[in-house]
Amino acid sequence: MTDRSLHLVTLVGSLRKKSYNAAVARALPDLAPEGMSITPLPSVGSVPHYDADVQAEGFPESVQALGNAIRGADGVIIISPEYNYSVPGVLKNAIDWCSRLPDQPFRRKPVLIQSASPGVLGGARMQYHLRQILVFLDALAFTVPEVMVGGAAGKIDEATGTLTDQGTRDFITKQLKAFAEFVQRVSPG
Amino acid sequence: MTDRSLHLVTLVGSLRKKSYNAAVARALPDLAPEGMSITPLPSVGSVPHYDADVQAEGFPESVQALGNAIRGADGVIIISPEYNYSVPGVLKNAIDWCSRLPDQPFRRKPVLIQSASPGVLGGARMQYHLRQILVFLDALAFTVPEVMVGGAAGKIDEATGTLTDQGTRDFITKQLKAFAEFVQRVSPG
Amino acid sequence: MTDRSLHLVTLVGSLRKKSYNAAVARALPDLAPEGMSITPLPSVGSVPHYDADVQAEGFPESVQALGNAIRGADGVIIISPEYNYSVPGVLKNAIDWCSRLPDQPFRRKPVLIQSASPGVLGGARMQYHLRQILVFLDALAFTVPEVMVGGAAGKIDEATGTLTDQGTRDFITKQLKAFAEFVQRVSPG
Amino acid sequence: MTDRSLHLVTLVGSLRKKSYNAAVARALPDLAPEGMSITPLPSVGSVPHYDADVQAEGFPESVQALGNAIRGADGVIIISPEYNYSVPGVLKNAIDWCSRLPDQPFRRKPVLIQSASPGVLGGARMQYHLRQILVFLDALAFTVPEVMVGGAAGKIDEATGTLTDQGTRDFITKQLKAFAEFVQRVSPG
Repeated sequence: MTDRSLHLVTLVGSLRKKSYNAAVARALPDLAPEGMSITPLPSVGSVPHYDADVQAEGFPESVQALGNAIRGADGVIIISPEYNYSVPGVLKNAIDWCSRLPDQPFRRKPVLIQSASPGVLGGARMQYHLRQILVFLDALAFTVPEVMVGGAAGKIDEATGTLTDQGTRDFITKQLKAFAEFVQRVSPG
Repeated sequence: MTDRSLHLVTLVGSLRKKSYNAAVARALPDLAPEGMSITPLPSVGSVPHYDADVQAEGFPESVQALGNAIRGADGVIIISPEYNYSVPGVLKNAIDWCSRLPDQPFRRKPVLIQSASPGVLGGARMQYHLRQILVFLDALAFTVPEVMVGGAAGKIDEATGTLTDQGTRDFITKQLKAFAEFVQRVSPG
Repeated sequence: MTDRSLHLVTLVGSLRKKSYNAAVARALPDLAPEGMSITPLPSVGSVPHYDADVQAEGFPESVQALGNAIRGADGVIIISPEYNYSVPGVLKNAIDWCSRLPDQPFRRKPVLIQSASPGVLGGARMQYHLRQILVFLDALAFTVPEVMVGGAAGKIDEATGTLTDQGTRDFITKQLKAFAEFVQRVSPG
Repeated sequence: MTDRSLHLVTLVGSLRKKSYNAAVARALPDLAPEGMSITPLPSVGSVPHYDADVQAEGFPESVQALGNAIRGADGVIIISPEYNYSVPGVLKNAIDWCSRLPDQPFRRKPVLIQSASPGVLGGARMQYHLRQILVFLDALAFTVPEVMVGGAAGKIDEATGTLTDQGTRDFITKQLKAFAEFVQRVSPG
């Protein structure tokens, strides 16, 4: 499907072990078009609370690791729940750290957003706040189609943490193909 | 100025010791109308990363302390910088924890927002994201006038951390009076 | 149900004759609690394109009529589709006119938002943009529960334009009761 | 400066004759890098209120003209005031019409946003709402630097409608160069 091979990385916005969003992230490699590899970034829980005084003493290794992994990828997929109609604090905190790094890792980086939630809206409100954040980061945010997995409890096997809903899998497959096309169009390798 | 005495608490969105927003928060008691007391809430750095698995084992004491202090107040003043065109992760994380508490502390609680930043916009983008969060929390968000302290470096004494700009002090005084009137109007004691 | 009788007015964001949102608006009087009357405002199509040069020659009668009707009500219910992830231009245009009126009609006016759309999200993105607009207008925006009628085609009888879905009718009934309580709590008559 | 010649079109969000935003739009051709031509689109006042029933009888000629002009350009510059913390209704209405056209004109079209206002924020809140609208339209929205002309009354000659402030002119010149680079990078001609 893709003309050039693409290496993408996933950033998950929830720390819960049985997170619906982690389940979606785990499903992605299987759904990726040929030539696209997808591997997880370190957990957003690996970085401390952002504090400019801590930054002044040097970026924590965990932040540098996150930044390096993002810089080395052709694109980033952020998969996150919505907390209180916005981006989870833990995810935003990891982004806040990355944004301060020299050679800011999200600059001109293609970014795809996905969300899952038990509710009907599937995390939509999180997505638009995240998009505004990506403007400042000068990322290349993919637009449509958008993946918002509503009613996630019925689409993910609780015991195995597997995204089982075929309609959702098909839609994500379609989105990943479109993102591959987008990355190659707007972000020369 | 106020007919009934009001006890307000401040939540600061930055952990930096010389934070402009902490400086604004410290200035508030001096600027408050008669009958209004203003005391600081615990630091947003006092709570861990939000993790539903941790919550399942019981709310951390730091989260309970934060929730209790909010519940005991007549209103909350959130004073925060803008990070990456949105709410700082550390502040959002503290709110994410509070939102899960039984007897959710922000419910029907009058909330005032202030922000300070070195830039021209003074944190405006943070304020509107925070407002959307407050909708879910069912808070009573004060509307106008809004306090966005732009060019904060020139309005706060770096050495002493004092808000010295008289125009800003006067405007905050005016806003606090309007908030006192708002609290008494929409939130019977 | 309500202690004081309340007179509410509805503003519909679509001009289409078979508008889903107009259908929801027509259903409201039947679903209102005792003591609450609900009547329609003039159409948003009745006012011209906003133009400050036209305003300088005097507010059009249609704008004055809209403003007077809003001022005379205890609260406003805005029922609108989402166009392009935001507020329909025609609705925003009517609000733009009203906002310039002396004795700005939305000031301290309780406002309830509802939306209907064929899609899954039911107009959610429109609602949050409208909420930001209401901040400037200094309105008292009701928070939760929110009514977003997704999949509207299956819930409204196309031939008669009647909101037939019982679950939606029940939920709106519940919201109207909560709004009645809100109006009496935050907006003394 | 540009390797390929670029033809851009401007869409102004205000109908006022002495509009600050129209003044900014008029200044752009002078500030454009070599190889970039900039011409005005028809006024947003040229299209009627959006009404799906009118659309069903055929798109008005004014809407088709607007769509054709956008389709024929390498990019669109939207210059608009902020009304009530959001996009002016008249501008949104024109976009609502365009969005319904077959071969939707904004799809994959590079778009630059500028705003001017008498206030300090310079129309910032309008810009982020417009960005959300552009997501649905699948446009390629330029990110940073952003042009928000605050305190416009002091930067535009009232009598001649000329953007006189040199700092603003220089900053717009810089932004137009960056936009030219962006268009060539993400939107093959």
